[in-house]
Amino acid sequence: PVVPAEYHESDFLMLGNLMPSVQKKVLDQMTKKPRLIVLDTMNFWMDNFMEDLVEALKHVDVLTINDEEARQLSGEYSLVTAANKILKMGPKYVIIKKGEHGALLFDDNKMFFAPAIPLEKVVDPTGAGDSFAGGFVGYLAKTQNLSFENMKKAVVYGSVLASFTVEKLGIENLKTITNERVQKRVDLLAELVSF
Amino acid sequence: PVVPAEYHESDFLMLGNLMPSVQKKVLDQMTKKPRLIVLDTMNFWMDNFMEDLVEALKHVDVLTINDEEARQLSGEYSLVTAANKILKMGPKYVIIKKGEHGALLFDDNKMFFAPAIPLEKVVDPTGAGDSFAGGFVGYLAKTQNLSFENMKKAVVYGSVLASFTVEKLGIENLKTITNERVQKRVDLLAELVSF
Repeated sequence: PVVPAEYHESDFLMLGNLMPSVQKKVLDQMTKKPRLIVLDTMNFWMDNFMEDLVEALKHVDVLTINDEEARQLSGEYSLVTAANKILKMGPKYVIIKKGEHGALLFDDNKMFFAPAIPLEKVVDPTGAGDSFAGGFVGYLAKTQNLSFENMKKAVVYGSVLASFTVEKLGIENLKTITNERVQKRVDLLAELVSF
Repeated sequence: PVVPAEYHESDFLMLGNLMPSVQKKVLDQMTKKPRLIVLDTMNFWMDNFMEDLVEALKHVDVLTINDEEARQLSGEYSLVTAANKILKMGPKYVIIKKGEHGALLFDDNKMFFAPAIPLEKVVDPTGAGDSFAGGFVGYLAKTQNLSFENMKKAVVYGSVLASFTVEKLGIENLKTITNERVQKRVDLLAELVSF
């Protein structure tokens, strides 16, 4: 893929789930180092292009990955131990997505957990990971704050966006949501875990 | 089982995971209605003694059950819908335990989620459910407060107790924990989800 010139100096770069060597090529087209580089990946690339993936990981700030993939990448069953190993491979932050069971955010000494909103109806999980990534990076790009505290909120927004995606087919729900509905679910999530 | 006379007027009754008709027999020996009756059960009793279980459920305040069992008992996949159906079967509260993924508490209009503490090492999950139940009822019996707010805390204490149990074999870890270590994990859990 050719990155259009007007994006060469972007502050936020989200490398979607693709062949790691292609992700690296996108990264290499940036003429200014982005403030934040996020990479999403999956088991298929680990099975077939692990070397390229390990190389790409050296250059990113945040890795988003699901629980089984974190175990595969690290060779560790415990997600805490897995995250610590992955943090040594390059990323400063690891987000482990557990689908309906929520998501964990790690840096080298802190840990945060955002539950998924318990939903009455899940129609199709396709796109949940991409919606999560979009919500996460979008929130950071909008707030321009890369503290761990703000990253937590970004994880919550990612989780909320994904919750809308899975309730309908394709991007049907995403086309109609409003800031107000998003905010309402963020508040619901805060209430859900407060004790 | 014969309930010793000195327990006949107990305020808190925890009916451990046993044949439902036996749980009911224990309940029937109470000469004063307990302030809170909690029942734990599992798929085995649903497979073989569903009628007895449904009868016992009519007389309890809290049901603790895991996610798959909640689905089996209600015939619903969504845990939110499952909980709502189960609440119509008798219990005023349902706790759905999701093992390493935490626990959900429901009453007829509120929902609370307590994550499980992410652990570096899990040795043996045996007894996690019983530890959870013990921590939950123990906290309520100690605080004597049956509000939903306090039940949330009880769920957190249950979750923390279970986290100690699974880290070692049998009751090894439970024999050595202190109030201080329990409290530390409760604080950790609060921090884990705060954003």
